[in-house]
Amino acid sequence: MKRFTIEVFTDGNTDVQNLGPQVAKPLRAIGGDGVLHLFVVGSTAALTTLEFEPGLVKHDLAALMQKLVPDDGFYQHEQTWNDDNGHSHLRSALLGPGLTIPFADGKLMTGEYQQIVLVDFDTRPRKRIVVATVLG
Amino acid sequence: MKRFTIEVFTDGNTDVQNLGPQVAKPLRAIGGDGVLHLFVVGSTAALTTLEFEPGLVKHDLAALMQKLVPDDGFYQHEQTWNDDNGHSHLRSALLGPGLTIPFADGKLMTGEYQQIVLVDFDTRPRKRIVVATVLG
Amino acid sequence: MKRFTIEVFTDGNTDVQNLGPQVAKPLRAIGGDGVLHLFVVGSTAALTTLEFEPGLVKHDLAALMQKLVPDDGFYQHEQTWNDDNGHSHLRSALLGPGLTIPFADGKLMTGEYQQIVLVDFDTRPRKRIVVATVLG
Repeated sequence: MKRFTIEVFTDGNTDVQNLGPQVAKPLRAIGGDGVLHLFVVGSTAALTTLEFEPGLVKHDLAALMQKLVPDDGFYQHEQTWNDDNGHSHLRSALLGPGLTIPFADGKLMTGEYQQIVLVDFDTRPRKRIVVATVLG
Repeated sequence: MKRFTIEVFTDGNTDVQNLGPQVAKPLRAIGGDGVLHLFVVGSTAALTTLEFEPGLVKHDLAALMQKLVPDDGFYQHEQTWNDDNGHSHLRSALLGPGLTIPFADGKLMTGEYQQIVLVDFDTRPRKRIVVATVLG
Repeated sequence: MKRFTIEVFTDGNTDVQNLGPQVAKPLRAIGGDGVLHLFVVGSTAALTTLEFEPGLVKHDLAALMQKLVPDDGFYQHEQTWNDDNGHSHLRSALLGPGLTIPFADGKLMTGEYQQIVLVDFDTRPRKRIVVATVLG
């Protein structure tokens, strides 16, 4: 088992960040075969895979999330804390905070158009910590 | 590899249960660094992370699920079995049955407001089995 | 760590395939206790668990996806590539490309009505590669 952490600076508001470059280098150094587990700390962000092209990243995912879990909906959560990010919590719970990807010879076995992304649903810029664990 | 199981008693109907306390103790006893994988057995419950506060837990997640996958919608599944939980199956498939969380020194690396939750979407109280596997 | 791959031939358009039979045999040969991680390569398919009965598999999941992420909605992605599968990418990101399941004595610890499924959201038949990694 090996572990490293990644720092990601986001704009919030369904900002989608490609984690590929930050993950590839340490994984190459570790080498061999196994799985990489990624986990984003916090309850208003999520991890998934997505083709990292502007249409999906800058428009479509945010538009979908706004339709399914609107930022101006009613959320009891916002009454509890007098804040504005009820939708952020729900979107994160829906997508989930973790992702596991197989690798071979130190290289992720993802598809050519399949990038590992962090989606930050909070309503302000955030620094995110992603815990990476290598097993195999 | 170490394994333990957790029993959770739910009310069904999108009841959200915090698994943190039941997970923390055996994990502390195991100690060290690694990842904890959790899996809920059955096709009408799911695992995710959520801030465990009453607004989200008692109202917002259930309201979202009712909007996205209404319990009174039409589901062919209910014709097959003559039952009432088509929405329960779909909600579970959407959130997913598993969750992997990194830990260090026998302690989960989740955020302060990020709790591990089981959501039971079935239409009646259930006893749920969560299989926990520790790797590292 | 052991690894094998599965090939799955799908019809696309939210075709749901049961991976159980293809997974059970190699897992039985490996035997012992651990977890099985599955990962579908590509950005327009996903893995989850679902009761594999015709109502859910042939109707309900597709109807839900059509409601949440319609195939005839507007997607900027389709402008980028001049294609028709913006909804496929988003549905996949929502469900996620990976799944981890515990096993004991070479047998998956899933519920009786809980099958491992690949859902292909692309708009045409596809050959899919699922990478299976056994840890434990």
